[in-house]
Amino acid sequence: MMRLDTADPGFEAAFAALLDTARETTARVDAAVAAVIAAVRARGDAALLDCTREWDGWSPADAAALRVPEAELAAALEATPPALRAALDLAAARIEAFHAAQKPADLETTDSAGLRLGMRWTALDAVGLYVPGGKAAYPSSVLMNAIPAKVAGVGRIAMCVPAPGGALNPLVLAAAARAGVTEVYRIGGAQAVAALAWGTATVAPVDRIVGPGNAYVAEAKRQVFGRVGIDSIAGPSEVVVIADGASDPEHVAIDLMAQAEHDEAAQSILVTDSAALADAVVAAVDRALAALPRAAIAGESWRRHGAVILVRDWEEAADLANRLAPEHLQLMVEEPRALFGRIRHAGAAFLGRWCPEALGDYVAGPNHVLPTGRTARFASGLSVFDFLKRTTWIEADRAGLAAIGPAAVALAEAEGLQAHARSVAMRLPG
Amino acid sequence: MMRLDTADPGFEAAFAALLDTARETTARVDAAVAAVIAAVRARGDAALLDCTREWDGWSPADAAALRVPEAELAAALEATPPALRAALDLAAARIEAFHAAQKPADLETTDSAGLRLGMRWTALDAVGLYVPGGKAAYPSSVLMNAIPAKVAGVGRIAMCVPAPGGALNPLVLAAAARAGVTEVYRIGGAQAVAALAWGTATVAPVDRIVGPGNAYVAEAKRQVFGRVGIDSIAGPSEVVVIADGASDPEHVAIDLMAQAEHDEAAQSILVTDSAALADAVVAAVDRALAALPRAAIAGESWRRHGAVILVRDWEEAADLANRLAPEHLQLMVEEPRALFGRIRHAGAAFLGRWCPEALGDYVAGPNHVLPTGRTARFASGLSVFDFLKRTTWIEADRAGLAAIGPAAVALAEAEGLQAHARSVAMRLPG
Repeated sequence: MMRLDTADPGFEAAFAALLDTARETTARVDAAVAAVIAAVRARGDAALLDCTREWDGWSPADAAALRVPEAELAAALEATPPALRAALDLAAARIEAFHAAQKPADLETTDSAGLRLGMRWTALDAVGLYVPGGKAAYPSSVLMNAIPAKVAGVGRIAMCVPAPGGALNPLVLAAAARAGVTEVYRIGGAQAVAALAWGTATVAPVDRIVGPGNAYVAEAKRQVFGRVGIDSIAGPSEVVVIADGASDPEHVAIDLMAQAEHDEAAQSILVTDSAALADAVVAAVDRALAALPRAAIAGESWRRHGAVILVRDWEEAADLANRLAPEHLQLMVEEPRALFGRIRHAGAAFLGRWCPEALGDYVAGPNHVLPTGRTARFASGLSVFDFLKRTTWIEADRAGLAAIGPAAVALAEAEGLQAHARSVAMRLPG
Repeated sequence: MMRLDTADPGFEAAFAALLDTARETTARVDAAVAAVIAAVRARGDAALLDCTREWDGWSPADAAALRVPEAELAAALEATPPALRAALDLAAARIEAFHAAQKPADLETTDSAGLRLGMRWTALDAVGLYVPGGKAAYPSSVLMNAIPAKVAGVGRIAMCVPAPGGALNPLVLAAAARAGVTEVYRIGGAQAVAALAWGTATVAPVDRIVGPGNAYVAEAKRQVFGRVGIDSIAGPSEVVVIADGASDPEHVAIDLMAQAEHDEAAQSILVTDSAALADAVVAAVDRALAALPRAAIAGESWRRHGAVILVRDWEEAADLANRLAPEHLQLMVEEPRALFGRIRHAGAAFLGRWCPEALGDYVAGPNHVLPTGRTARFASGLSVFDFLKRTTWIEADRAGLAAIGPAAVALAEAEGLQAHARSVAMRLPG
């Protein structure tokens, strides 16, 4: 863990180094992934069966066995213990409500030249959702990825999840059922992405693929991009907590550890104007770690990537946050709205002392799939917008064309595109 | 040119083949591009100067010579012939107005548990705009790429354009000045993309790079993706014209040729329910070609990729259009709005007989940078949304946390993330 003070002469260099640290190195798997994609394109289901036998440790009887029967999904939801079922329902309902509020309206205008111009939103026909198997098989991620697609009006939501040894996490299936996933396949890795992009006899192709995955999945998404849309490739998670001296150091410490427990490459940064709080939080982190089952991971993340930065005022804090452009930003200060007004770059913000990031991870409503690694400078969290696209349109009559057509002719001629020019000129009144 | 009839038994196979035809093969330039990017990262301006000398046929005196002085931009706008200047101004004003209308509103709600939830849009700080040199240096593209960024509120718009032999198209500079581009550099190719992504002493880095380019530029954008955002990689252009028997075959023919004259790989498709119109358009295309300066290109595109498809009704036409998901869709029918209501996938639509696509290329207002190659299934045209990003936010007080916190604790525990669970549980009322 690194301690910095903006008043120190070496601060700028140390902070720049913090910004530039890549917390993850990606293995080069291009060739292996290209081979898997080529195999799935050439041999379809047969390639999926081969890959599953080789890497997932089970042997499907046939291609039909790759698909999870609908009854199994419904049964998983039914079998969920009541308290957990209620939590899942609360989360799903709130995520639905927030994403429904995001839905944009169509645009339609008539301009002074009499042309009607507009922009219409339509849903994608079909999307693929990749869900990692093993330790990162999180039901909350199924809700966060599938519900925005459902709310957008996507007809087919096809989910692929590896089933190590043939087994699936029942809570992941329950979440899929609750979220309205239409098809679930026990397929993982690059072969799942290839199947979703190109289609096989068993898996119909989709238009866009979302969801996190390992290096093979990420590279496969990169390689099928263009054939289908993809979401951005998520890196390790991070949080910046801006806290004043009145904040409870135990709360700040556990919030930092909630981020750190995800992954050794996760990053938790405290920014504060109180040296006393900084000291108290550092001590509280040690106490919190001692009681955490995932202390080894969280401790490693904190030691390698954690930081505590002392600032002179909130303007400085906002400036550092904007340069970090964090995935998650907690504002544990007296006037969180005022400070939030100074923030330009963050995936999601959590305002006040009673709003730990974990609330947003599960039940608040906004999406927990957020831009990592400073990409909040240009990217946004998952939303209904990821499952909609726009068609702009123009409606002109003779008078409208006559009003603005001559300018189009002049520009087309200047660009040397005569057919463009004539297509307008030919329609102008003699 | 291919003639198809949905009533023929072989139609489905022939149409599927049409859908699957890749109109462009991309050269593998990964290694060459990786070397250029590495050079620019390592040597900055010196590498830009080397690349410019090697590939652009001129020798800048120093790095400062790479930047076009602001006075030169203003002078180019001043020197534009009045009629062309008026056309440029009309186009710019209309593009501004339409994109301003696209600007989305922030979202803010208070839910039944008393939590305040919201979504705030903010502009990117800085974007890079790549403009190809030579034949494809189109001033209209400068307007279409830069104005949405300006309207979104982007502070820095840095444009890179190769200057073969040191020379630039004055109308491109005029368009840059009119559109509000803040910096123009005489830099092209992968080195321009590398400079925009990583920065050099002369070119400050940006957050997102947009604009068309050759195979090297496209690959460079792919390689810097993640460091910065990029727009989608545009393929060759296409139009589908749906026209009824009452349409003027000369108009339909010139609209098809306006698309074909872009590029031998462009595609123009007529869909009609009238065999007589089909025959008349085919004859009119030959006449139109005879009079076009770019007849060689347009003719090659028409012969290789053109198609005329006879349908039985508009439902069939809409279905084919949705499967083609064309970049441009003209609806030259009696009731274009009704037909447009059946269209789910198209980049931009042009309604009525008096609305040639070229109107939208230059002056109507909606963007002419549109998804090609069937990607309108999941992608959209350029817009203000490309230069904005969203920050979602949550504001909870003790009561709000108490209302929904227990569900978050239950889900976090089910996922085995104890620090997540405790960060909420610790704040719940005893």
